[in-house]
Amino acid sequence: MMSKIKVGIIGATGYAGEELLRILFSHPDVEIAYIGTRSEGGKKIGEIFPQFSFTDLTFSKIDISEAIEKADVFFLALPHSISLKYVPPLYKKGKIIIDLSADYRFDNPKIYENYYVKHTSPELLSKKVYGLPEIYREKIKGKKLIANPGCYPTSVILGLAPILGKEIIEGGVIIVDSKSGASGAGRNPTKKTLFSEINENLYAYSPGIHRHQGEMEQEISNLSCKKMKVLFVPHLAPYNRGILSTIYVNVKDGIEEKIYKDYKVFYRNEPFVKVLPLNELPSVNMVRGTNFCIIGIKYDKRTKKLIIVSVIDNLTKGASGQAVQNFNIVMGIPEERSLINLPVLP
Amino acid sequence: MMSKIKVGIIGATGYAGEELLRILFSHPDVEIAYIGTRSEGGKKIGEIFPQFSFTDLTFSKIDISEAIEKADVFFLALPHSISLKYVPPLYKKGKIIIDLSADYRFDNPKIYENYYVKHTSPELLSKKVYGLPEIYREKIKGKKLIANPGCYPTSVILGLAPILGKEIIEGGVIIVDSKSGASGAGRNPTKKTLFSEINENLYAYSPGIHRHQGEMEQEISNLSCKKMKVLFVPHLAPYNRGILSTIYVNVKDGIEEKIYKDYKVFYRNEPFVKVLPLNELPSVNMVRGTNFCIIGIKYDKRTKKLIIVSVIDNLTKGASGQAVQNFNIVMGIPEERSLINLPVLP
Amino acid sequence: MMSKIKVGIIGATGYAGEELLRILFSHPDVEIAYIGTRSEGGKKIGEIFPQFSFTDLTFSKIDISEAIEKADVFFLALPHSISLKYVPPLYKKGKIIIDLSADYRFDNPKIYENYYVKHTSPELLSKKVYGLPEIYREKIKGKKLIANPGCYPTSVILGLAPILGKEIIEGGVIIVDSKSGASGAGRNPTKKTLFSEINENLYAYSPGIHRHQGEMEQEISNLSCKKMKVLFVPHLAPYNRGILSTIYVNVKDGIEEKIYKDYKVFYRNEPFVKVLPLNELPSVNMVRGTNFCIIGIKYDKRTKKLIIVSVIDNLTKGASGQAVQNFNIVMGIPEERSLINLPVLP
Amino acid sequence: MMSKIKVGIIGATGYAGEELLRILFSHPDVEIAYIGTRSEGGKKIGEIFPQFSFTDLTFSKIDISEAIEKADVFFLALPHSISLKYVPPLYKKGKIIIDLSADYRFDNPKIYENYYVKHTSPELLSKKVYGLPEIYREKIKGKKLIANPGCYPTSVILGLAPILGKEIIEGGVIIVDSKSGASGAGRNPTKKTLFSEINENLYAYSPGIHRHQGEMEQEISNLSCKKMKVLFVPHLAPYNRGILSTIYVNVKDGIEEKIYKDYKVFYRNEPFVKVLPLNELPSVNMVRGTNFCIIGIKYDKRTKKLIIVSVIDNLTKGASGQAVQNFNIVMGIPEERSLINLPVLP
Repeated sequence: MMSKIKVGIIGATGYAGEELLRILFSHPDVEIAYIGTRSEGGKKIGEIFPQFSFTDLTFSKIDISEAIEKADVFFLALPHSISLKYVPPLYKKGKIIIDLSADYRFDNPKIYENYYVKHTSPELLSKKVYGLPEIYREKIKGKKLIANPGCYPTSVILGLAPILGKEIIEGGVIIVDSKSGASGAGRNPTKKTLFSEINENLYAYSPGIHRHQGEMEQEISNLSCKKMKVLFVPHLAPYNRGILSTIYVNVKDGIEEKIYKDYKVFYRNEPFVKVLPLNELPSVNMVRGTNFCIIGIKYDKRTKKLIIVSVIDNLTKGASGQAVQNFNIVMGIPEERSLINLPVLP
Repeated sequence: MMSKIKVGIIGATGYAGEELLRILFSHPDVEIAYIGTRSEGGKKIGEIFPQFSFTDLTFSKIDISEAIEKADVFFLALPHSISLKYVPPLYKKGKIIIDLSADYRFDNPKIYENYYVKHTSPELLSKKVYGLPEIYREKIKGKKLIANPGCYPTSVILGLAPILGKEIIEGGVIIVDSKSGASGAGRNPTKKTLFSEINENLYAYSPGIHRHQGEMEQEISNLSCKKMKVLFVPHLAPYNRGILSTIYVNVKDGIEEKIYKDYKVFYRNEPFVKVLPLNELPSVNMVRGTNFCIIGIKYDKRTKKLIIVSVIDNLTKGASGQAVQNFNIVMGIPEERSLINLPVLP
Repeated sequence: MMSKIKVGIIGATGYAGEELLRILFSHPDVEIAYIGTRSEGGKKIGEIFPQFSFTDLTFSKIDISEAIEKADVFFLALPHSISLKYVPPLYKKGKIIIDLSADYRFDNPKIYENYYVKHTSPELLSKKVYGLPEIYREKIKGKKLIANPGCYPTSVILGLAPILGKEIIEGGVIIVDSKSGASGAGRNPTKKTLFSEINENLYAYSPGIHRHQGEMEQEISNLSCKKMKVLFVPHLAPYNRGILSTIYVNVKDGIEEKIYKDYKVFYRNEPFVKVLPLNELPSVNMVRGTNFCIIGIKYDKRTKKLIIVSVIDNLTKGASGQAVQNFNIVMGIPEERSLINLPVLP
Repeated sequence: MMSKIKVGIIGATGYAGEELLRILFSHPDVEIAYIGTRSEGGKKIGEIFPQFSFTDLTFSKIDISEAIEKADVFFLALPHSISLKYVPPLYKKGKIIIDLSADYRFDNPKIYENYYVKHTSPELLSKKVYGLPEIYREKIKGKKLIANPGCYPTSVILGLAPILGKEIIEGGVIIVDSKSGASGAGRNPTKKTLFSEINENLYAYSPGIHRHQGEMEQEISNLSCKKMKVLFVPHLAPYNRGILSTIYVNVKDGIEEKIYKDYKVFYRNEPFVKVLPLNELPSVNMVRGTNFCIIGIKYDKRTKKLIIVSVIDNLTKGASGQAVQNFNIVMGIPEERSLINLPVLP
């Protein structure tokens, strides 16, 4: 029996933090040795998240020297731009870092800066791996800095990966119309995210200008070995968890069966990706509270468009579940540990 | 044709304000001559509430002298304790005031102060009328200061009024178990009122200590001509609008039919209160977006308890609809004007 | 003062029927003279829809001779294929018919038959007008048979009309990704439409094969004076009312301002269509319970795609509100009568 | 290592069946050897519940001889009155039966018959144990027939048990005002359980006459060693899972601390019941998808009423989770096996 791994969490009071705690508390190889937050230092976890009242663990006000002393592997569940402050000192000390923010996801700091803020440690970008295990599993194994993918990009890249870099896509723009539950808008209270504003409502936002569009284009272009354009239009929908991305791609005619086979082969050994039978599409509740991505594809002969529907739970496979999957990989633990559970339906 | 009444609104950026604007914009006798707010001065109404983009009306930063100059009748849709500041100067100038806050609802300032803050103009309490038209219609007609009832008390007092002060109630405590939609928690953003916290959830709060309990007891005791005790337990439920109050009363045996007749007689001419056939109970969506109160009663012979279920829309009959009903009464306008509409179902 | 118009309703127990009754009960020129249903004959309306308990009106078992005798104008709110049975005898007797089903919407019976059933009175198709007032107002005026448009097509055709038939669209397929509330799935109980199945869920259905795709293509092609292809993917979303259609069109570069002006001009006199300021997009709750269509457009320069978001209430502008709008037009009544109300928000 | 237990399920297509399958699929000691249903015989489980598509298990049309041959322990998740048909033959063959229906919950067949139908095997009632482990754990161990409690009674009996049979309750009626999510209404489609009917709605039903009232009274009276009266008013609330029961009890004055201590002591070793700190009340989402019951109590000095709020997930502790808890007990397996998981929040 291996001794437990001392894990530190920095930033844990948002919804991704809540989900991360849920998963780590059930992880047999993990000892949560440090939890630092910017605002709730001194409080017991159960004061913020009553479902964790069973533990005496306490949030600390972030102190990076204390953190470094207490833990060996770190999850950062901080808002974008805040990770820039904590990653460099942790990296310098040789810690393993799984960063859930966007701060180290980009290859090119310029693109990061288009969407976010000035990057203050661009030299670390080449040290990171983009933490999408289905694509980069082998690279993840030896890395110290894992940039955990964004929620929307996870659903979209997994939905497209099997056909990228092959002679399948006909050209033109890939249209991504995504629908996210409200937890994706975060736990910071605003008028727009009040119950009465989101309930019985649905709307598009940031059409063609959302930050995740750049992230999708980077990865889709990398996998295609050429520059690809995505038009990404996210929508906010009135449920707690889940992203459903409907993806429209121009494809060559007459290769429907081949495409389907490509999907089946590409994901045949993946523990967390399921491909539905051809022409069946997933619903978003099928992955609620799980680390699964379920993909359905349908070829529309009339218009030569491939319709791909990809669903994930934005907080699990789209954030904290994937972070633990990366943790398991980098630590040499079986990849599914603490991540296998069936959705609670209805 | 009468000329329009110049109406001022002070505090209009919450949900009660939004509902008040909706009703007043359709009111043929009203000219909105002034809208003062504490925080949004200078903005057009449509910037805060896009559904009102058709008007060029603009919020002003509250300036009570300007308000007095511009309008003759005032609706105050302010948080509790803030009305204390604006009612006295308006009253002094002889304006008609319909105050949606709790600040002037109490007869006894001590009780107000138990639940709220120090009362700074207790001398005005005896000038007010408690603006529940079904009880105090005649008194409302000549008053300058109308204290618009709370949402929960409206549902409960209307549910009980026909049997108070008669030899029907057996004694003991009246138990009120109410369920309110999320708009009752206001438009001020907090973690607790985020969509993801209220959705798929329900909970009791402030059991036996909610501010509206004192208000209910005052009115129920007044109508009973003796001190009555209420145990009030409100619950927050995951829908936008509406209060359903389930009320448990000990009653004398064998007078079920008489009780039902009392309800039918009491409300026979009321435009906004409906009594269902005996043993039928209302659902909360039957009053959504309307000024109606619907009451169902059921006598449980085994336990000699009367179960009364009373539903209102907390923002309409529970706030702004009732305020306009009071306005119509005090101005001598037909009481139902701008308040008659069917619920939008489903 | 005109005498009231005797109106008959055939099929009134679904959600479109419920909405039709809501609107007609407030219509000052309407006397509901007959309501025939297939299943609830003999019941009072209030037994099926408690919010209408104020009326003594009773459902009849459909008897077309009785219907013809009692009313002059008919609304048919029947499932598809059932209208085929009742339209011919009504038409023969010279009645004015507003049919909410798809049965007479198509110009070409073959296309109808692709999606529905064998058409048994194709000779009437050339007598109908497609009842979209913003496009066919003048034609509606003299017609006896008005085929009220489908809900999805209403949102999509209105969203596209200003740029069709001009040198704006670059070619290729128009992609329509729509999100509908659950009332669109009808009032017939099925496992899939239970609360617990739709709540906290969202899914795509009938991608590229939904019946409304053919209807959209007919009208978009007619307005374009050439064959146009639409790829339509509807989604079911967890709210009661409303459709939000996100439409992706390839357009020529550099004419963003011109396009916006086309929208503003096209709808400048329309009582029920609003165009938002350029780059602003509507949310679906802005039209809840109203007959409005609100359109927002955004041009994405990078991909030369126009993103159009169009929202309607599927039961009002998407069904019964539009039916009454058609009724008002054909009867020479002011078009907005009984249809002007603000959305109840939140 | 023990060999797996051959388990049969009869009736598995409702929500309790779906939840039972979720739990049993993760149970390391269980082999599902037979699943019989009345309507879906021949279908694979994944056709009815797509989340279980990983298994090749197939529903059989119920054949009790086949069932007896294939399995040793049976879960019956059938509607009330149907279990009457299958329990006797299984019992006769010495099978262990955990019946989720009400058919064997009552001690007195007359009371069963008041609420349900004629009882056809009343002789078996004295063989059963009422399967509430926190009360009857020791009795459950040797029994063959375990009548799994109803959902509402579970929440109420656990909420009251620590103070029953002691000199605490002052007399009079216990009022129970419960709020259940929509899955409690079952998976059989009806107009009343459509999404659009329950969403944005809440209502009371069966006040004082619900079947579970009799069940509560039996158990509360048994525990009190005297006849107790309950007035039970259930409400349907718009969320999928969970029951929150607000219970009002007259208690003696001045023993608030003692009462609280009684709760803490009573449940101190219970793996599935948590008592919150005095005066804190639980919300229903804290138990979602878990087998926990969380209880909060508050004493209202003014009225000498104890307010108890008890929450469970109606499908887990209120049905299938408790059934597996009983299974673990009766089979000598650790009681928490396959039942320990944290709620998925938000």
